[in-house]
Amino acid sequence: MATLKTQAAARQILDMNAFDAGAHEGNLNPLLARRMANAGAAAVLFYREPIEVVSAKGSWMTAANGTRYLDFYNNVPSIGHTHPRVVAAVADQIARLNINTRYLNSVVDLYMDALKATFSPELSNVVLSCSGSEANDLAVRIAGATSGGIGIIVSENAYHGNTSIISDISPSGRKSRKLPDHVVTVAAPSGPGQSASVEDAFDADMKRAIAELERRGHTVSAFVCDSIFSSDGVYADPRGFMRKAIDTLRKAGGLYVADEVQPGFARTGDAFWGFARHDVRPDIVTMGKPMGNGFPMAGLVTRPELLERFCEDTGYFSTFGGNPVAAAAGMAVLDVIREENLQENALRQGNYIKARLADLASKDERIADVRGAGLFLGIELCRPGQKDRPDAEVASSVINGLKDRGVLIGAAGRYGTTLKVRPPLSLSEEEADIFVDRLADTLADLKLS
Amino acid sequence: MATLKTQAAARQILDMNAFDAGAHEGNLNPLLARRMANAGAAAVLFYREPIEVVSAKGSWMTAANGTRYLDFYNNVPSIGHTHPRVVAAVADQIARLNINTRYLNSVVDLYMDALKATFSPELSNVVLSCSGSEANDLAVRIAGATSGGIGIIVSENAYHGNTSIISDISPSGRKSRKLPDHVVTVAAPSGPGQSASVEDAFDADMKRAIAELERRGHTVSAFVCDSIFSSDGVYADPRGFMRKAIDTLRKAGGLYVADEVQPGFARTGDAFWGFARHDVRPDIVTMGKPMGNGFPMAGLVTRPELLERFCEDTGYFSTFGGNPVAAAAGMAVLDVIREENLQENALRQGNYIKARLADLASKDERIADVRGAGLFLGIELCRPGQKDRPDAEVASSVINGLKDRGVLIGAAGRYGTTLKVRPPLSLSEEEADIFVDRLADTLADLKLS
Repeated sequence: MATLKTQAAARQILDMNAFDAGAHEGNLNPLLARRMANAGAAAVLFYREPIEVVSAKGSWMTAANGTRYLDFYNNVPSIGHTHPRVVAAVADQIARLNINTRYLNSVVDLYMDALKATFSPELSNVVLSCSGSEANDLAVRIAGATSGGIGIIVSENAYHGNTSIISDISPSGRKSRKLPDHVVTVAAPSGPGQSASVEDAFDADMKRAIAELERRGHTVSAFVCDSIFSSDGVYADPRGFMRKAIDTLRKAGGLYVADEVQPGFARTGDAFWGFARHDVRPDIVTMGKPMGNGFPMAGLVTRPELLERFCEDTGYFSTFGGNPVAAAAGMAVLDVIREENLQENALRQGNYIKARLADLASKDERIADVRGAGLFLGIELCRPGQKDRPDAEVASSVINGLKDRGVLIGAAGRYGTTLKVRPPLSLSEEEADIFVDRLADTLADLKLS
Repeated sequence: MATLKTQAAARQILDMNAFDAGAHEGNLNPLLARRMANAGAAAVLFYREPIEVVSAKGSWMTAANGTRYLDFYNNVPSIGHTHPRVVAAVADQIARLNINTRYLNSVVDLYMDALKATFSPELSNVVLSCSGSEANDLAVRIAGATSGGIGIIVSENAYHGNTSIISDISPSGRKSRKLPDHVVTVAAPSGPGQSASVEDAFDADMKRAIAELERRGHTVSAFVCDSIFSSDGVYADPRGFMRKAIDTLRKAGGLYVADEVQPGFARTGDAFWGFARHDVRPDIVTMGKPMGNGFPMAGLVTRPELLERFCEDTGYFSTFGGNPVAAAAGMAVLDVIREENLQENALRQGNYIKARLADLASKDERIADVRGAGLFLGIELCRPGQKDRPDAEVASSVINGLKDRGVLIGAAGRYGTTLKVRPPLSLSEEEADIFVDRLADTLADLKLS
């Protein structure tokens, strides 16, 4: 079982909640065994007993055995699983035309216009690609061409994607957490025991990171940052805390790359984009996951002069990026967010869940903190009454206990102790109640055992 | 117009046949102006007057003005534009379920099984991603983990994709053609004036490249190679010429990465995969473009122990890679290739076109060479009777003349003088005739002018 053990170790880097074949007792079910044989060491599956899913609708997924699960895990089908508008848009366009951007097609420009309308006017160039990883890879290269340097600053437990240079700036993607010489981290903006004002502390840390890069002989190129600090454990407050640090970064010649793969497309409720909550202006914004509600698409926006500088020696062309089927899917997502008031709903349901969780936390000493914005919340789990002692075992038990009660949820943070609350933006109050009630039941049962 | 000029320069790196806004006279049409404003310096459009396409079917695309074009350009919709089987598979699956590979879903494993069946059994692990660029990026990292080195060998005019490290090994993607220290090139296998046996010459060049890497202090990691040498100008013969060089590479500790993004999925007619024509065994095979007939998907296959080694410190997860909608599209492509005998058709129509072109070449001194395999042919254009003097002006005029006659085709090679014949694999003999007849007409008209 050496192979399975290595597989398990590899998988656990990316997710505390990974299936562990090495620890698995008895025979694997046939489909699971087949997946392990097909995907090998790169297989990454959720849960002690992975779920075979056969269909999904709205906030719900249905397993092969008929069990229905409320999906609080996945921020890709963000307007709801198999949303009819996206289904119709894709089915219609793929039957009509699917080509690359070397030909003109009005569906694509209609989408680029609509996407640009969500940003301030200086971010007027769009590059469409296939994945958030590709978008971040290009963003780092554009920043390099602009700054003339390679020094990158990221948060301590950042994850920005899977290409080579993006893996280099994603400490949470590596077991060893070793980072190359040109990458320096800053602490997530808030945490237990931090007394100074969050804005000043974050700015001081940015100054330290810049000085460290300079000490190592690297020119500062960019600060790449997910403003909801998702993989760090979800830190959203106080609004505006990034301003001083971004000013400091600019003075040092660095660009601010807002990675909106996680908080983008209305999820944080306060604004359409996560960075906008903090009243800062990125030089480049990257996006992905919920952009096509699951249709593979991603991209970035930036100022024309940055793209022009980058294109002096190299070109950029993506075969699939900006195909009209993706554009149709992306347009349906933008339309639905607006027409169904999903940003407002994210704020309302997020605040509702937060209030109910605060109530739960006041009665349960294992909940150290409830934080976040809109429908991107973090629930920090700790040893009873010891807020500074994160408890990964409780987190894992809660995740699996919720699964047994029909609710899917994941964890983040350095120790995997922050439950990530991330349901579709179309969540109803009834569904919000189901989540909180089942979480309460799970914690109550854990107390008894 | 400084911006437009820079844009044009950037675009011409990637394609000799790019729209050139700097050289454009008069006003741009509204959609073209809008695209230039949206995509900025990264806009890459075909033709002196870009085409607005509104629909496509089989081998034909229809422009907004009603003009129908025979598509000899695009090897993505390889089984034919908007093939009903792919359309139905995508429409059905996207209405049912679209999730990531952290959940089990039999559609995905059914596809991985079917894909693996096209390779020899040792290549038993599949990693699915979104683009050929991502697949090649991962392949280079896997090779690095296996070899412990970073030295890469590619062909002189290679193009392997758009991520940072893949751009580094894609000389044709850079205007300056500057390559990093760890990248060394070998000449495409055949060319004017080469006298030694192709196999021996290619092997000797591989030895030189390995020695050069070692001289620079780099351990040889991989030879990344498109076996049809598409961007080098399409060099397919003689079959088997790569064997000695691959043996030499292995002895030096390097891995052979077969980039099948261009020749794969039955296009070369002789075999399902391009490398298989040469009877060599890759350590990693990457694929993309025609894999989903336009649905964004890509991937690689490799031996389990290579993936395991790579995953020791890092994980690999792609949010969109291996989603069931992509798997359904990919399965439809494999089914259609088999059921419609497209590999056989590629060979038959390719040989038919080759024979007709040989006849044309015997009467026209501007055709220096006709080469290639299946429906991936190259037509080398030169100054009349001077086979060793490639003529980019004739190539450009032929491309635009064919467009005026309703046939779309592109160019490749160091000087952009190799017409790439790359129609859908479902091409009919009637369509093959249309192409050759209109090429003859175009050349005849050029002669007169």
